Amino acid sequence: MKIVLIGSGNVSTAFAHLFESLGHDILQVYSRSLDQAERLAAKLGTSATSSLTDINKTANLYVVAVTDNAIEQVIEELPQSLKGIVVHTSGATSMDVLTKFPLCGVIYPIQSISKDSDLRSKETPIGIEGNNEIATALLLEIGKSLSKKSFYCDSKQRLALHVAAVFSNNFTNALYQVAFDILKANNLSFDLLKPIIAETAEKVQHHIPKEVQTGPAKRNDQKTIDRHLDFLSGKPNWETIYQELTRLIRNKDT
Amino acid sequence: MKIVLIGSGNVSTAFAHLFESLGHDILQVYSRSLDQAERLAAKLGTSATSSLTDINKTANLYVVAVTDNAIEQVIEELPQSLKGIVVHTSGATSMDVLTKFPLCGVIYPIQSISKDSDLRSKETPIGIEGNNEIATALLLEIGKSLSKKSFYCDSKQRLALHVAAVFSNNFTNALYQVAFDILKANNLSFDLLKPIIAETAEKVQHHIPKEVQTGPAKRNDQKTIDRHLDFLSGKPNWETIYQELTRLIRNKDT
Repeated sequence: MKIVLIGSGNVSTAFAHLFESLGHDILQVYSRSLDQAERLAAKLGTSATSSLTDINKTANLYVVAVTDNAIEQVIEELPQSLKGIVVHTSGATSMDVLTKFPLCGVIYPIQSISKDSDLRSKETPIGIEGNNEIATALLLEIGKSLSKKSFYCDSKQRLALHVAAVFSNNFTNALYQVAFDILKANNLSFDLLKPIIAETAEKVQHHIPKEVQTGPAKRNDQKTIDRHLDFLSGKPNWETIYQELTRLIRNKDT
Repeated sequence: MKIVLIGSGNVSTAFAHLFESLGHDILQVYSRSLDQAERLAAKLGTSATSSLTDINKTANLYVVAVTDNAIEQVIEELPQSLKGIVVHTSGATSMDVLTKFPLCGVIYPIQSISKDSDLRSKETPIGIEGNNEIATALLLEIGKSLSKKSFYCDSKQRLALHVAAVFSNNFTNALYQVAFDILKANNLSFDLLKPIIAETAEKVQHHIPKEVQTGPAKRNDQKTIDRHLDFLSGKPNWETIYQELTRLIRNKDT
């Protein structure tokens, strides 16, 4: 396939290396910053542009992997005459933003993609959607080559996945940081919690989370909960989070 | 050492197997339920009782491992004349509840101890506290034999650890369940999030959590946040949790 990458950030880079490893031909890299486009293009031995009107028109696949905030504007500026299929990679963005293209869709990798992320293991689940039967069939085919865990999901399901990933990834990480801060304020090392953090994430690989729920909220141990809330007083955000998550766990048991 | 176990639940059982593996002599198991005391005692080839006044007086170490709610009453009923050192294993309970005994302290394993938990790997961090120099020295010695990661921590530090463990273990697990419920309602498998859950817990083994924080709150992507809140409308508890954790992550960046 001949591919144009729109974007030069972590997601675009991870896809670039994946496409390269599969023998595809990356024709061009676009970024608003020519510098950044050139940096990624140099790694791939291809050309760079910072002008959306100069996008190569001969590609089979255009991958829009820019920040969610920029997607709509980038798409507006892209020439409508592209004949290849145009996809974005965003979990929270509906496929509808791409309707100006006759063939379009979504390739959504369910991973928190950072600088060193690598999709080449093909273990990252990838959600696929197309705007019609041809696009869907084509993208499912591409999806199969990109990951052992590609699957069809519509825009509503993808939004559900994105929200669920925020809860199980972004928010858990934020809770780890609360734990870190509490320990630090008491001259204790975060190392002490690393085993229990690993264990908690490991347990849900094989169990439904609520079946392995433990702790004072689960035991309805109000005395301990009160002690904890007393400990947290003066930190209203932490207190509210404690109260709401305690409420959540209690409701789970009824 | 000659040991009496007060309690027959998961924590008591895990300690029993650990003590046994180290060659200690478990003299007796107490439980409010004679049945349960006998079940654990049978496994250990020792005697059982459901009466605290019949507790064997010749032990060197008494381990009170009952639910947090029951600790104070059990301690009240224990004969004051015990010459051995009396410890509890609770994260949220001050050592002060044990002051009627001349030698007392705490052995607190930082693990969510369930039915199949095993402390014999000696990898579980164990916090140690004693009520005077003799008790502390003795318990630190015992701690060293129980875990490669035993350490001294006072009652305030232990409470901090317990609260931090609730955030990084109980609460993260509750968030996994929210993700599970969202996916289920949208006909998606929780399997899709297992890699990202494992990856998130893995990252903080080597990084400070806030350094690897990602997501719309971190990017200040209000459009995506609004889409997510819209998705969650009708679930007030989930919405509040989303809002408070978003606020938490935003504050982290300033």
